[in-house]
Amino acid sequence: MSAESRFLTLLRLLAHDPAAQGLMDDVALLPVGDTRLVLTSDTIVEGVHYLPADPPADIGWKLAAVSLSDLAAKGARPVGCLLNYALSGDEAWDAAFLEGLGEALDRHAMPLLGGDTVKMPAGSARSYSLTAIGEATGPVPSRAGARPGDRLFATGPVGDAGIGLELARADPAASGPLVDAYRRPRPRLAEGALIAPLAGAMMDLSDGLLIDAARMAQASGVAITIDHIPLSLALEKARGASTAVQIAAARAGDDYELLFTLPRGMTPPVRAIPIGHVSAGRGLTLMIDGAVVPLPDRLGWEH
Amino acid sequence: MSAESRFLTLLRLLAHDPAAQGLMDDVALLPVGDTRLVLTSDTIVEGVHYLPADPPADIGWKLAAVSLSDLAAKGARPVGCLLNYALSGDEAWDAAFLEGLGEALDRHAMPLLGGDTVKMPAGSARSYSLTAIGEATGPVPSRAGARPGDRLFATGPVGDAGIGLELARADPAASGPLVDAYRRPRPRLAEGALIAPLAGAMMDLSDGLLIDAARMAQASGVAITIDHIPLSLALEKARGASTAVQIAAARAGDDYELLFTLPRGMTPPVRAIPIGHVSAGRGLTLMIDGAVVPLPDRLGWEH
Repeated sequence: MSAESRFLTLLRLLAHDPAAQGLMDDVALLPVGDTRLVLTSDTIVEGVHYLPADPPADIGWKLAAVSLSDLAAKGARPVGCLLNYALSGDEAWDAAFLEGLGEALDRHAMPLLGGDTVKMPAGSARSYSLTAIGEATGPVPSRAGARPGDRLFATGPVGDAGIGLELARADPAASGPLVDAYRRPRPRLAEGALIAPLAGAMMDLSDGLLIDAARMAQASGVAITIDHIPLSLALEKARGASTAVQIAAARAGDDYELLFTLPRGMTPPVRAIPIGHVSAGRGLTLMIDGAVVPLPDRLGWEH
Repeated sequence: MSAESRFLTLLRLLAHDPAAQGLMDDVALLPVGDTRLVLTSDTIVEGVHYLPADPPADIGWKLAAVSLSDLAAKGARPVGCLLNYALSGDEAWDAAFLEGLGEALDRHAMPLLGGDTVKMPAGSARSYSLTAIGEATGPVPSRAGARPGDRLFATGPVGDAGIGLELARADPAASGPLVDAYRRPRPRLAEGALIAPLAGAMMDLSDGLLIDAARMAQASGVAITIDHIPLSLALEKARGASTAVQIAAARAGDDYELLFTLPRGMTPPVRAIPIGHVSAGRGLTLMIDGAVVPLPDRLGWEH
């Protein structure tokens, strides 16, 4: 058990309210008055969750997009957010960050409601937190609703952001659709709102298809088989589609597509790619070109 | 105009929703369904908002207390909170932080609902954010409701935490009521709930009596005269009650008492100390022993 796992165990002792869902989901689900709020908060740290050389507007965009993606996976409507901001000491940098953040907020109709601004001591890595509040508009799918017989879908290809991160790390001036996928992820709010009333289970792909599917299987108490790893044309063009490339794409994080299950025979209400199925049992099985492939040691981004 | 002021000007462009109150109040006030939420978020930074040698349980307590105090000033009922936590690398330290945080949350019935846990790069100052959600239980006083003729009150003495900080800085092992006032501030939730339906204006004293009263006067478009600076017996015993001590107490932050106005002749519904009055005009006047005293250059903690 890692230090972080032990810390989370202590945290769960404080999170005894049912709304916290035992801190086992990406969001809290809080009944207030005659409605239900979906609450999520994310922190990004310089050098850990983004590259110091990333354009500040993209960092701001991404901070908002990450929380919006959590709302999307619940079919929730964004209501507002609070920002915790560490001033950089560089006004142009801060202004560009806010510009990118504002673009993401405006695009997804999530107003900034408040927060806090602080100065860090010289030399500190900076961190930014965004707490997003959504309102549930109907049934709120969890990770735990996958049932044997369900089909598994993703709203789009995986792995682009992972390659984009590699490209940006090698050359901060890199551009193109793969770098965009890393720097400007698009939260699937419209898709999530349409899928949520129908889905068995749903979550966003933030840490990698394999690890997120394994978490869905575990939370649901079922077995999941992935028999197709959806790759974009941009990724295939850059790296091909070998087994190694497919596995790398399925282990890469930051895609922010939605992973969801539907009962067999039901057509997804949005464009989505069939990638596998759910059966009785436990655990994750990966098939490539019709054959079972051993799972890699590290399934994705663990934190 | 400071860099931070310019940043806040840019932030306000994103905070165009009425719920954000132009970022001019300590909280956002968000209608959701048939109720109103009171939202507040605070970040504390190592070496800026607390001393690195402060006991971790006290830092955790204080993080919760600061946000609870914002809810208290709105007469709001705590509903839940989200924590953004930077692991220290020292498990005992993290566990003690959570213990203190948990004490404050339990004491004030504010469950932890979620958040995010991150690791910082080595050598970084750590920061912690807490976003608190409250539910309005009736009228929600703002800073802007003070009217000529009103009387001004505080729920308790000021300056203890400021002296406590001095003592803790000089000796991390220092103890006693003044150090407790700095390390374990008590949010005035019960008092706030009783005062809120009656108050003209209300806010918590986080940055110092003089600066906070000046802000109330400005937001309300009135003049405020403070004719009594309430000191605790502990403070008088430690420092006396000279004019200099009184002014220092009125400039010190971190008290977390409530500052509020009531119409002339109305008795406060809780124990409170009369400290001044509101009149037509602008700005803040300070009187000590019946005579007007020039305001110090720095009225309190500006950020």
